[in-house]
Amino acid sequence: MILRDLIARKRDGGALPEAAWRFVARVAADRSAPDYQLAALLMATYLRGMTDGECRALTRAMLESGAVLRRPAGAGPWVDKHSTGGVGDKTSIVLAPLLAACGVAGPMMSGRGLGHTGGTLDKLESIPGFRTGLSLDDTLRQLDTLGCALIGQTGEIAPADKTLYALRDATATVECIPLIAASIMSKKLAEGLTGLVLDVKRGSGAFLPEVDRGLALARTMVDIGHDAGVEVVALMTAMERPLGAACGNALEIAECLDVLRGGGPADLWAVTEALAVEMLRLGRPGIAADAARATLRDAIASGAALAHFRRIVEAQGGDPRTIDDPSRLPQAPVVGDLLAPRAGVVGAIAPRPIGHAIIALGGGRTRQEDAVDPAVGIVVRVRVGDVVEPGQPLATIHARRDADLAEARHAVLAAMTIADTPSEPPLPWVTHRITAAGVEVVA
Amino acid sequence: MILRDLIARKRDGGALPEAAWRFVARVAADRSAPDYQLAALLMATYLRGMTDGECRALTRAMLESGAVLRRPAGAGPWVDKHSTGGVGDKTSIVLAPLLAACGVAGPMMSGRGLGHTGGTLDKLESIPGFRTGLSLDDTLRQLDTLGCALIGQTGEIAPADKTLYALRDATATVECIPLIAASIMSKKLAEGLTGLVLDVKRGSGAFLPEVDRGLALARTMVDIGHDAGVEVVALMTAMERPLGAACGNALEIAECLDVLRGGGPADLWAVTEALAVEMLRLGRPGIAADAARATLRDAIASGAALAHFRRIVEAQGGDPRTIDDPSRLPQAPVVGDLLAPRAGVVGAIAPRPIGHAIIALGGGRTRQEDAVDPAVGIVVRVRVGDVVEPGQPLATIHARRDADLAEARHAVLAAMTIADTPSEPPLPWVTHRITAAGVEVVA
Repeated sequence: MILRDLIARKRDGGALPEAAWRFVARVAADRSAPDYQLAALLMATYLRGMTDGECRALTRAMLESGAVLRRPAGAGPWVDKHSTGGVGDKTSIVLAPLLAACGVAGPMMSGRGLGHTGGTLDKLESIPGFRTGLSLDDTLRQLDTLGCALIGQTGEIAPADKTLYALRDATATVECIPLIAASIMSKKLAEGLTGLVLDVKRGSGAFLPEVDRGLALARTMVDIGHDAGVEVVALMTAMERPLGAACGNALEIAECLDVLRGGGPADLWAVTEALAVEMLRLGRPGIAADAARATLRDAIASGAALAHFRRIVEAQGGDPRTIDDPSRLPQAPVVGDLLAPRAGVVGAIAPRPIGHAIIALGGGRTRQEDAVDPAVGIVVRVRVGDVVEPGQPLATIHARRDADLAEARHAVLAAMTIADTPSEPPLPWVTHRITAAGVEVVA
Repeated sequence: MILRDLIARKRDGGALPEAAWRFVARVAADRSAPDYQLAALLMATYLRGMTDGECRALTRAMLESGAVLRRPAGAGPWVDKHSTGGVGDKTSIVLAPLLAACGVAGPMMSGRGLGHTGGTLDKLESIPGFRTGLSLDDTLRQLDTLGCALIGQTGEIAPADKTLYALRDATATVECIPLIAASIMSKKLAEGLTGLVLDVKRGSGAFLPEVDRGLALARTMVDIGHDAGVEVVALMTAMERPLGAACGNALEIAECLDVLRGGGPADLWAVTEALAVEMLRLGRPGIAADAARATLRDAIASGAALAHFRRIVEAQGGDPRTIDDPSRLPQAPVVGDLLAPRAGVVGAIAPRPIGHAIIALGGGRTRQEDAVDPAVGIVVRVRVGDVVEPGQPLATIHARRDADLAEARHAVLAAMTIADTPSEPPLPWVTHRITAAGVEVVA
């Protein structure tokens, strides 16, 4: 098979056969194809699209390009959750111990922050000692003992996706629905799951802001899962404002500990609970939504979820004292508030500029090889619709240096609007539920 | 300037400003951009197109990425010719000495064969000792003494085009009108010409077979030249059958020597003369077409053109005895005819399969780094419309090995049709003349 011929076919709008996508995944995984040919194919694919069959074929080919986790014979269901990414989106860190405490097992494989979004792995690694780089064998052992492991994508899993994703990032071919779907699902299907819950973000802070494109991505991923025998439920949730209050690695861990103690911001719990209900129902077929909610709330109220998180932290090398004493998390040396310059009503809190302000503070990445500062970040102290007085704190900024603090104050203020009259109420946090049966408008 | 942002703009159908194309040419020339980003930009450009302004900007930027030939103060006009390439297309080798003998100077900068087409440099290098790799200084000296130099694109000229062309070849982004036009014109404008004649091929053996696409390419190049103050005239000529009889490097040199002696195939002379008339008129403004034709025929009949070729061969290190004794050209050890298997009328002689048969014989390239065998090739012994008898020679094949001869016989026979009744008469050799004033249908 000649890669240039495949590029030409895709360039002319043709659909490539399954064998062609297998070839592409193989030469991407073993790095035997020149990157420039793969880049040209990705751009042609971005602009010409893929059929559903091609998307399934590429997903399968990338999945089969590497190792997979095998659910042991006799094991119960395995359920994971994936989010398309946002600012303040920290639900995985609560969901993993919460579901495990409710008896639903599953590997939770996450990524690192890139662009304006944070990454679960970076957040977890702000816990002193916490290791996310477990081998597949270690992951299986921990799943057996604790029902849960919070891990990163190892080099063994879907190496073809690793090559293609890095090229997409460098060649402006990321925001392509079938390529996004194949990338996510190839890794998720490699986890040996029985069920998967997707959190597909919409709004200005999402990688695909438009509702229709987000729904198309959700439907594509649900179909790929269905085709592979994995039940997939997607919730579309809002990302035109940060989720919760804390944005930044250690700050978000502290907020997750609040939630696991029954506290934390109401919006963060609302989204976390909606996702948890779906995961619990996939893990325990037959349970009603109300019963699922009661089970989850019990696990929080009883301390079982928090206790489970402590065991996971300990198992993965983290300092368990952090659980009871979040001041053991990395602390930024410079902390200061952004004060409201005028009276008014909070009209918008734009997540992208908040994300970029975190990068400027050193807490995010612009390139995959960048290191992140775990301590820095921004805690948003108001919600959309709040009435504020002059001098009232709008946000608290955690910085490494005074100059960074001053810069972040400007950036965060620019991300917010304070108006004389209330704007339209913001979007509900969960707006659609997408399953193999179709799309349901939730709110 | 960030290359990924430029890729994204072109991907979304935007026009890039002149400064962006300058940036692209600079990072392509100094190899500071990753090839995969350039490849993605080329595919986005292929699929989204370029405005006329962008095409001019890229041309100028590639031209300015390297050295240029400077016409000395007080020198007369410099005229060159460029062909978009075909099979048996050897007019440059006749035109260069012919025009110089008529007092019209100019560097003749040519390329190597790629794909099914031959290349003037490969043909010239079949003359023992002939060197095409002259420096710009040597070229200027030879232009001063002989009015002509037959040279290749040095690394100094348009290095940005060199990088981008190699990538286009590997990424199926060659057949893109603005990219073709910018590639050709950046090199031609670097020659310091006052006039340029383009031979834009049409038909199955052309890189752009369709008439409308060929005309669009011609118009684009004429406009770029006009914009840069160089008068450009394009002729559209037929390439649905090979030009002349000889196809293959040394065989084509021998045929050019026939033409310079006043012989050779009538079709080859017809195309050569049409191009020569345009070159002469650009070089001697005011001369009428009839007078130009008479001047050219005199230069052939008097032996002046042949004598000029001898001087050029000598100046560029070639063995001048080859001129009078073409048997000094490389000779293939195995020569055999393809005989007509039946009686009938020759209906078609497809140039692409003939070109591929030459590659199979070793006389062409599939990759730029391939070496070519100068001796091998195919002499087509019949023309479209000829009536043939069984056993009559259709072609003579010059091969390195017996097995190659047998294979070439099959390939050449498959490239020809022999029918019971004559097909439509073939296209005239010259069909359109394109200038800044518009398109004129010649035949």
